[in-house]
Amino acid sequence: MPDIGRRVWVIPGGRIPFPAHGAEPEFAGFDQLCVLNATDETAEVRVDVYYEDAEPVGPYLIPVGARRIRQVRLNDLIDPEAIRLDRPYGCLVRSPVPVVVQFLRQDTRLPGALGLATTLAYPA
Amino acid sequence: MPDIGRRVWVIPGGRIPFPAHGAEPEFAGFDQLCVLNATDETAEVRVDVYYEDAEPVGPYLIPVGARRIRQVRLNDLIDPEAIRLDRPYGCLVRSPVPVVVQFLRQDTRLPGALGLATTLAYPA
Amino acid sequence: MPDIGRRVWVIPGGRIPFPAHGAEPEFAGFDQLCVLNATDETAEVRVDVYYEDAEPVGPYLIPVGARRIRQVRLNDLIDPEAIRLDRPYGCLVRSPVPVVVQFLRQDTRLPGALGLATTLAYPA
Amino acid sequence: MPDIGRRVWVIPGGRIPFPAHGAEPEFAGFDQLCVLNATDETAEVRVDVYYEDAEPVGPYLIPVGARRIRQVRLNDLIDPEAIRLDRPYGCLVRSPVPVVVQFLRQDTRLPGALGLATTLAYPA
Repeated sequence: MPDIGRRVWVIPGGRIPFPAHGAEPEFAGFDQLCVLNATDETAEVRVDVYYEDAEPVGPYLIPVGARRIRQVRLNDLIDPEAIRLDRPYGCLVRSPVPVVVQFLRQDTRLPGALGLATTLAYPA
Repeated sequence: MPDIGRRVWVIPGGRIPFPAHGAEPEFAGFDQLCVLNATDETAEVRVDVYYEDAEPVGPYLIPVGARRIRQVRLNDLIDPEAIRLDRPYGCLVRSPVPVVVQFLRQDTRLPGALGLATTLAYPA
Repeated sequence: MPDIGRRVWVIPGGRIPFPAHGAEPEFAGFDQLCVLNATDETAEVRVDVYYEDAEPVGPYLIPVGARRIRQVRLNDLIDPEAIRLDRPYGCLVRSPVPVVVQFLRQDTRLPGALGLATTLAYPA
Repeated sequence: MPDIGRRVWVIPGGRIPFPAHGAEPEFAGFDQLCVLNATDETAEVRVDVYYEDAEPVGPYLIPVGARRIRQVRLNDLIDPEAIRLDRPYGCLVRSPVPVVVQFLRQDTRLPGALGLATTLAYPA
C-alpha cells in the first residue's frame, strides 16, 4: 500500500502548554505529532518549526519505520534546538514517502482539569 | 446515494486512555471509530491496527448496515486480538463501499475531568 | 463569492450528551451544526439523521440566509421528530448552494468538567 | 516553497466564550486563528466575519510575515469593530499567497474546567 497519505503536512497552531499539573509523565502538557507510515519503507520524516518572530528552525528528524506509527511529543525534540514551552509555533512536516499526520494537544495547566484537542494536519 | 465518502481512511493518533474514573460505561475511557454508510449495501469495514514496535494486526471486522452508522469503541475489538490500553497505535480503515469515518476520544484518567477530542479520519 | 464550500457534508459521530450539569442554557449538553453560507442566496439546508438500528429520519430543514451563518443545536431539531438524547447518530447535510459545515460538541455530563470537541464535517 | 496551503479558508463555528475564570491572560476564554505562511512574501491576510443576524463585517487585516506563523485571538480584533463576546459568528479568511489556517478555542466559562477544541479551517 504505497500511496496512502501525503508527503507534506502542515500544523499552524502549536504551543506546548506550560506549566503542567499532575503526575509525570502521564499528565505532562504536550503537543504531539502522530505519524502513520503504511508503506514498506522507513519514512525519514523532517519537521521544520515556524515562529512568529524568528526564522524557521529545522529540520528535526523523525524516522518512522515501514508499517509503523510514531507519536512524538514536540517537547522531546531537541536537535537542532528545543522548542521553548508556551511559545507559539507551527510545523511543516515532510516525508519522502506518503504518510498521514495528526496533531494532538494535552493541556494540564489548570490543576484538576484536562484539556484535550486534536486535528489532522493539513495535507499540502 | 452511492458515492458519499471514501473507501480508505486513516487515523494515526490512537491510544486508549487508561485508567478511567467515574461510573461505567458512560465515563469509561475510550477511542472510538464512527462510521456512516449512506449506501444501500452493508459495508464490511476492515480495520488494521499499526503500532510503534510491531507489525500491523488485523483485519478487525466491523459490518455497518446499509443506511446506518456505527460507533465502535476500539476497546471492544478483540478479534484477532485486543488493543492494549495506553499503547500508541494507528488505524487503517477500509471499506468495499464508500463510507465516512470520524475518530473520537473520551479521556477520564483524571478524576473529575473530562477530556474530549475528535477529528475526521484522513480520506486516502 | 458563489463557490465557497460544498453541497454535501457528513458527520458520523453524533451523540447528544445526557444528562447535563450547570446553569441552562449556557452549560447544556449539545451537539451543534455550524453552517456558513457565503453566497447571495438563502441556503435551504436539509439534514438527514442516520442511526445504528433504524432507517434514516429526515429531512430536517435549516434555512441559512445569504451571507449568514447559523449554529443549530441538534437537540433543538424536532420536525419530523426529536433526536433522542444519548443515542448514537450521524448526519448527512445537503444544501442547494455551497456552504461550509462544522460540528461542535459540548459535554457537561460530569459535574465541574467541560468536554469540548470540534471538527469540520466531511465535504462529500 | 510557494505553494503550501490555500488562499481561502472558512470557519463556521465561532463564538468567543464568556465569561472567563482563572488568571489572565493565560486562562482567558478565546477563539484563535492560527496561520502559517511558508512563502517568501508577507501574507496580508483579510478576515471577514459572518453573523446570524447581520451583514458580514470586515475585512480585518492580519499581516503574517514571510516564513512566519501568527496566532491571533479573535477577541483582539477591533478594527473595523470588536467581535462581541458570546455571539455566534463565522470567518472567511483570504490571503493573496497560500497559507494554512487552524482554529482553536479555549473555554474557561466553568471554574476549574478547561475546554479545548481545535480543527483545521476549510480550504475553499
